[in-house]
Parts: sequence; structure tokens; C-alpha cells
Amino acid sequence: MNTTEEVATKLVDYCRKGEWMKAVDDLYGKDIVSVEAHAMENMPAEMRGIDQVRGKTDWWEKNMEVHSAKVGGPFVAGDTFVVQFDVDVTEKASKKRMQMSEVGIYKVKDGKVTHEQFLPLAEKK
Amino acid sequence: MNTTEEVATKLVDYCRKGEWMKAVDDLYGKDIVSVEAHAMENMPAEMRGIDQVRGKTDWWEKNMEVHSAKVGGPFVAGDTFVVQFDVDVTEKASKKRMQMSEVGIYKVKDGKVTHEQFLPLAEKK
Repeated sequence: MNTTEEVATKLVDYCRKGEWMKAVDDLYGKDIVSVEAHAMENMPAEMRGIDQVRGKTDWWEKNMEVHSAKVGGPFVAGDTFVVQFDVDVTEKASKKRMQMSEVGIYKVKDGKVTHEQFLPLAEKK
Repeated sequence: MNTTEEVATKLVDYCRKGEWMKAVDDLYGKDIVSVEAHAMENMPAEMRGIDQVRGKTDWWEKNMEVHSAKVGGPFVAGDTFVVQFDVDVTEKASKKRMQMSEVGIYKVKDGKVTHEQFLPLAEKK
């Protein structure tokens, strides 16, 4: 069974290669809870279960052109790890290019990710 | 009462100025729980209450010469925020110089930090 650090390192490796769905398939538990900071169009902030999270990942891969993804970490302690993402993407439909900076906080149980929460970088005031 | 984002922004500002104790005095609740990844000499991993956390901060300020502290974030969602630290310090007693990279996960309730947990960067394998 993978330790928290092993799960964290594999997740970071998949994300650095842009293999978002492989990360879900390999590392996520079937009862995963995934929490975004805000609801998006057609998507609630909180998703439950591997099927909903696969749906979100599928939407991401189909709708976003990823120019670069800088992935920092993992930072690991106990059953928790944190990964930092700096992603430069263009939304294919609107051709809007966006730079997004956020962290994910992940919880691991029985060698699988069971909870993830994303926190965006606060706007400079 | 400060929002999570206001507390987070103030904490980052204090840390960038090296004002570690001011951050505790201004922003921490009296029942703060502070969790390090590992116990240190003479210090358990988990500390409870503002007096213990002041003690840890006092120990830090007295025993460490901070050459630089890069502070990233804050990343904020709901009652939670994350800050990234890259700190270059010399332990005064041993003259040992260390570069430490970690994140803190903070919980805010009633405008005060009530829980903090530190997660070190995983070693490259």
C-alpha cells in the first residue's frame, strides 16, 4: 500500500506530465470528495465520488489548452500533502488565456486520495 | 472581525518582515493548536495554547539567525489558508546553516488562527 509520500510523489509526477486522468485512475479512492473554492459553470464546488471527479478531469482536458504547468511540492506530513500549481491555460471556447495559481490540500487513507481541496492565490490588494 | 483572507494577508505581511511574534500576538487565538511534522529537541510536535506557541516562537527568534525568508501566498478558501515558506537560517548554537522549505495550513475561526499545521517539502528520491 502506498504511503502518503508515495501517493504525493506520484501525483506530482503525473501532473508534471499533464497526465491528469492517470492521476485520478491510479491514485484516487472511489469515494473521493473534491472541493473547489468556487462553483464553475455547470459544476458545483463540491464533487463526490470517482465518477464525478473523472467528469471534471475530462472537462478540464477537453476544454483547456495547457501551455505550461509548474507543479511545486509535494509537502507531506501524516495523512496530508500539499501541491502548488501555477498553470497557464487557454479556454478553448472563449480563447481566453488565464494564469492560475493555487494549492491543493490532499488527504490519503489506505493508500488512496480520499479528499482534495483547492485554494486560489489571494488577489494582491 | 477579520475574514480568513484578511488574517492570511496580515500573517504573510508579518512573516515577510520577520515579525514572527507580532503575527502570534495579533492573529492567534488563545486556544491555538500548532502541529509540526516532527518533534524537535525539547519540543513536542503538537503544542496547545497561546503560551506554548509564544514559547516556540520565542525559541525560534532566539536560536535562529534568519538570512532570508521567502513567503508565498496566501492561498485562501473558506476557513482555510496556506502559506509557503522558504527559509535560509543558521542555528546559532551549532552554526549549522539550513535551507527549509515547507507549507503551513491554517484554520481561522472568529477572526483568529485556531489551528496551524506545517508540512515539509518531501525529499527528492
